[in-house]
Amino acid sequence: MHMKVGINMKIGIIGYGNLGKGVQMAIAKQNDMSLFGVFTRRDPKTVSADGATVYHYDDLLKYKDEIDVLIHCGSSEYDLREQTPQLAEHFNIVDSFDIHPIIKDHLEAVERVAKNHKTTAIISVGWDPGLFSVNKTIFDAILPDGETMGFYGPGMSQGASNVAMQVEGVKYARNYAYPNEDNVKEFKNFNAVDVSKNHKRVLYVVKDDAYTEADIEAKIMASENYFKGSGTLIKFISEDKMIKEHSGWQQAGRIIRRAKTSDANTQIVELSVTLDSNPEFTASNLVANARAAFKMNQRQEYGGFTSLDVRATDLSSKSREALILEML
Amino acid sequence: MHMKVGINMKIGIIGYGNLGKGVQMAIAKQNDMSLFGVFTRRDPKTVSADGATVYHYDDLLKYKDEIDVLIHCGSSEYDLREQTPQLAEHFNIVDSFDIHPIIKDHLEAVERVAKNHKTTAIISVGWDPGLFSVNKTIFDAILPDGETMGFYGPGMSQGASNVAMQVEGVKYARNYAYPNEDNVKEFKNFNAVDVSKNHKRVLYVVKDDAYTEADIEAKIMASENYFKGSGTLIKFISEDKMIKEHSGWQQAGRIIRRAKTSDANTQIVELSVTLDSNPEFTASNLVANARAAFKMNQRQEYGGFTSLDVRATDLSSKSREALILEML
Repeated sequence: MHMKVGINMKIGIIGYGNLGKGVQMAIAKQNDMSLFGVFTRRDPKTVSADGATVYHYDDLLKYKDEIDVLIHCGSSEYDLREQTPQLAEHFNIVDSFDIHPIIKDHLEAVERVAKNHKTTAIISVGWDPGLFSVNKTIFDAILPDGETMGFYGPGMSQGASNVAMQVEGVKYARNYAYPNEDNVKEFKNFNAVDVSKNHKRVLYVVKDDAYTEADIEAKIMASENYFKGSGTLIKFISEDKMIKEHSGWQQAGRIIRRAKTSDANTQIVELSVTLDSNPEFTASNLVANARAAFKMNQRQEYGGFTSLDVRATDLSSKSREALILEML
Repeated sequence: MHMKVGINMKIGIIGYGNLGKGVQMAIAKQNDMSLFGVFTRRDPKTVSADGATVYHYDDLLKYKDEIDVLIHCGSSEYDLREQTPQLAEHFNIVDSFDIHPIIKDHLEAVERVAKNHKTTAIISVGWDPGLFSVNKTIFDAILPDGETMGFYGPGMSQGASNVAMQVEGVKYARNYAYPNEDNVKEFKNFNAVDVSKNHKRVLYVVKDDAYTEADIEAKIMASENYFKGSGTLIKFISEDKMIKEHSGWQQAGRIIRRAKTSDANTQIVELSVTLDSNPEFTASNLVANARAAFKMNQRQEYGGFTSLDVRATDLSSKSREALILEML
């Protein structure tokens, strides 16, 4: 594994959608790294990447010695499962794999390759999984006699939106979650909470004229993992209104732990994010973790890791001494 | 360095005030550790420690091979500065040293001894410094183009209370801080904030009859680092009222980072705690960090550390596999 010494890490981005663009902007805000280039499966000549050099994905290996860390911005389902383990043979790599039930499998696949080839891979980076996972773990460790609950929104849920988009007759769909503030309050007051009522959901749909609203609504609400039993309210709107009012990527979320430290005393700890741009925030997490992967690799910490294995000092561009003075 | 294998860590507590008692309760809530005993400078016969064995501090070294980690619950100023480095020669040790400007000096003193004697010490554990420091570092690393601000209260500030207690004629004093919610709102809206108005402070005082209120107030408000220019409102109350209404240890605090990830998009990240008992919460942090010190020592990670160096996995009693399934 070739590794540059010094503080100008060269980062390669795979995929140039919203997340890839966010990573490019996040790298520009850091003082110890620069963008080597963007790798895409499209014809590089057709991709304009705001001044960055664009390469074809198939040429990635040619630049093995010039890239310190790859940030893979592809789809969890279609790209990361296969490619992160493959690429870990040659590169330090960071991804935002977020299919929660199979993160463990993904980690094991990456881990095997990275250990053998002395690379460092950090997977499932972002806020959930990622920053929230770290704090959930800390809260649980320090306050074992308690419960953690997550509330999401107000904001756009990409997963559910995509599921609705696949229903026949749906042209566009955007799903919003709103936290039930009464439940938040009751949870913090150590009262019982009906978890099924933690969120209200509204799905905005632009339909194809050939289909009726009733038909589309029935099909959407029948889909097993996202909508059935969710109480989602479906609102049909015009394409014009959809573009004007629902093109943003706002999202918010919080995790709250309520716990007892003695018979007399309760404690509440809460982490929250309020994001104008969900992909840009995830991108910012990926970039700091790319730095951590680089530092860990330099210390010969090889293998597959998640945010839970990363020290705060490794995420930062600041020296340990500067951090002690500024943060403690 | 003798080290037990297995998952029943034996913890020694030094000092049996509010913090030491909190540590005892926190250990009881953990499933992989037990209390070896309490060490005190008082006559052990006079200390009743809720069933725990009480030893004299001077006998500590005799139990060197039976204690996996010491948690020092003494005063930062009078005990920890001297004793944590001394004890790191023989023990893994955790403390809550919180004199911010000299944490670096304390760490260096501990580091030298711990490295030489192959022990592991984690200092300045708690919520600030501690949990807040970790998140401040992460927020700063992922969102470099932004600012972090801390707001404290509503709650009792022990440091300021102690300073007021030292003024002649003051029998009891309790200082409360209240965050200025207007400033919180303006900060989150990316507006300018007058930091000097971030908190309102009220000091409740029980005075000795021999002194006038005006005299005491003048003396308190003259004290340099805490009260002068702070705008603290002083309220004289009866001893009875003080005991009834101001005997709790409630505290709250939050850190907020506001940042830009692009010209168009801003992001807000916030960590907050609302505590019935400040010392019990600090104690809970100490206990989880004692576990981390134990695990790090077993992996031969010797030296002086702070929360910024500790991985979330090391704080937890759960296996890495269980954490991946539960937290990610």
